[in-house]
Amino acid sequence: MSPAGETIGLIAGSGRFPFLVAQEARRLGQRVFAVGLAGVTDGALAGAVDELQVFKLGQVSAPLAALQRAGVRRAVLAGKVQHVSVFGGILPDLRAVRILAGLKDRRTDTILAAVVEEFRKEGIEIISSATHLAHLLAVPGCMSRRAPTREESSDIEFGWRAAKALAGVDIGQSVVVRDRTVVAAEAMEGTDAALIRAGELVRSRAGSGKTALVLVKVAKPRQDFRFDLPVLGLDTLKTMEAAGATAVAMEAGKTLLFDKEAFLQTADRMGLAVVGVEDGRSGAGGAPRDAGRST
Amino acid sequence: MSPAGETIGLIAGSGRFPFLVAQEARRLGQRVFAVGLAGVTDGALAGAVDELQVFKLGQVSAPLAALQRAGVRRAVLAGKVQHVSVFGGILPDLRAVRILAGLKDRRTDTILAAVVEEFRKEGIEIISSATHLAHLLAVPGCMSRRAPTREESSDIEFGWRAAKALAGVDIGQSVVVRDRTVVAAEAMEGTDAALIRAGELVRSRAGSGKTALVLVKVAKPRQDFRFDLPVLGLDTLKTMEAAGATAVAMEAGKTLLFDKEAFLQTADRMGLAVVGVEDGRSGAGGAPRDAGRST
Repeated sequence: MSPAGETIGLIAGSGRFPFLVAQEARRLGQRVFAVGLAGVTDGALAGAVDELQVFKLGQVSAPLAALQRAGVRRAVLAGKVQHVSVFGGILPDLRAVRILAGLKDRRTDTILAAVVEEFRKEGIEIISSATHLAHLLAVPGCMSRRAPTREESSDIEFGWRAAKALAGVDIGQSVVVRDRTVVAAEAMEGTDAALIRAGELVRSRAGSGKTALVLVKVAKPRQDFRFDLPVLGLDTLKTMEAAGATAVAMEAGKTLLFDKEAFLQTADRMGLAVVGVEDGRSGAGGAPRDAGRST
Repeated sequence: MSPAGETIGLIAGSGRFPFLVAQEARRLGQRVFAVGLAGVTDGALAGAVDELQVFKLGQVSAPLAALQRAGVRRAVLAGKVQHVSVFGGILPDLRAVRILAGLKDRRTDTILAAVVEEFRKEGIEIISSATHLAHLLAVPGCMSRRAPTREESSDIEFGWRAAKALAGVDIGQSVVVRDRTVVAAEAMEGTDAALIRAGELVRSRAGSGKTALVLVKVAKPRQDFRFDLPVLGLDTLKTMEAAGATAVAMEAGKTLLFDKEAFLQTADRMGLAVVGVEDGRSGAGGAPRDAGRST
């Protein structure tokens, strides 16, 4: 938790993540100075923070100076910025050029780590993106009313190893499993597209409405909490329903549920099993917790 | 190579693979007795072999007896049989039930290994599916006129590690790479669908016609040559062109090119780089061979 009265920096990508951070920071009495990216950050964020300044992707000096002027000492990275090198078309400033020139590769995590280091040198520490959102982290065990069936548990356990291997080589962080077979593996298209593909594939082959898919989403083996924690939200539940997925497993303590209460209520209404898994523990898809829901 | 005069068994899945095995076996003077699967094997195979008998998927005793009656001592598995457990709807005979009951899991390779063992007990040896097709195997080095660019080589090297990780956990055997990022990872949808997805994804985000994708296809880390070697054919080249892929790398000695001569001619006409890689060797995407094309 951050002290009240502090001006916290919020470097905002797309989606709901920056809004939730801003909301919680202000609830804690912090002032929120946000830096947005043109074409990426939702403009509505201006209404949820104390100040929003928008910069072009590729600029480092200008937003850094703005954060310093606002008195920011600690900042959070929140929300997605699509993988830059694939899109091209950005105009890096001199500082960004210098950072890029010093990189061993152009992986997102490599770029972010270099940017974080640059900020640190200028007196701004990038802190865990879960700092304000600990209450939204998945907990270990069954979080839904319905526990996974034996088949679902077995698919979760199988999918866990597969997803960890995928994440370990930076391909993606989700797999969609049925009957101990990976039907779809996520790369750049995202979790929802992988779910839809898996649903179509199984329906087209099985010729039946029941697809009985299981979604498994993991953190990277060396997940840096400052960058891009895995996130699941209501959209994913809707996609799961459309694809015919009946259970979802995620990494406890390393996955954010947006918004957790509504997420679990909706999952219960849909009859889905929602499981938090601690990596390295056996019984990945185990029985529901005796203690029941922890929210 | 198999001796002339032998009656070779051909257990035929879908696609061109069984046709190519039959063609080469007969060229070698072998008699080909084929066992087909209803709804899977192309009926036209009857015209390419000495005898074709068709059985239902899930039957083991009847095709085994048919092979024995035909005097078959050695047989080849050729062509795809889609993953059975995902589709359901098959009616296993008693022998198949007994085999399935004894399995540690339902992975395709596990099922096939058990069936192979059952055949062995009955005096029929399943031999490498490349036995008749050694001339179609990819060779190490650059097989196309155009060598991969430095960027393509670097994407091949990056994709190789990713694809091997994917294959190591039985997810799939292909990745589509751009700029040292895996854009699409293949699971059950197949290589062509992954290529198309990658092309659409990069076009939709980059907003440009140039996608500059690289396809990397590998064998499993412990590839059993009796089952389902990776295959690339003219269809894949057409899909590469449609998706905007400019280079393809595959595992030398463990990937079949259907039909190799036409494949390489077409690739040259399209200006694609085609590279055979020996796993564990450095310089995966290296320069074209001095010796030039080896066909």
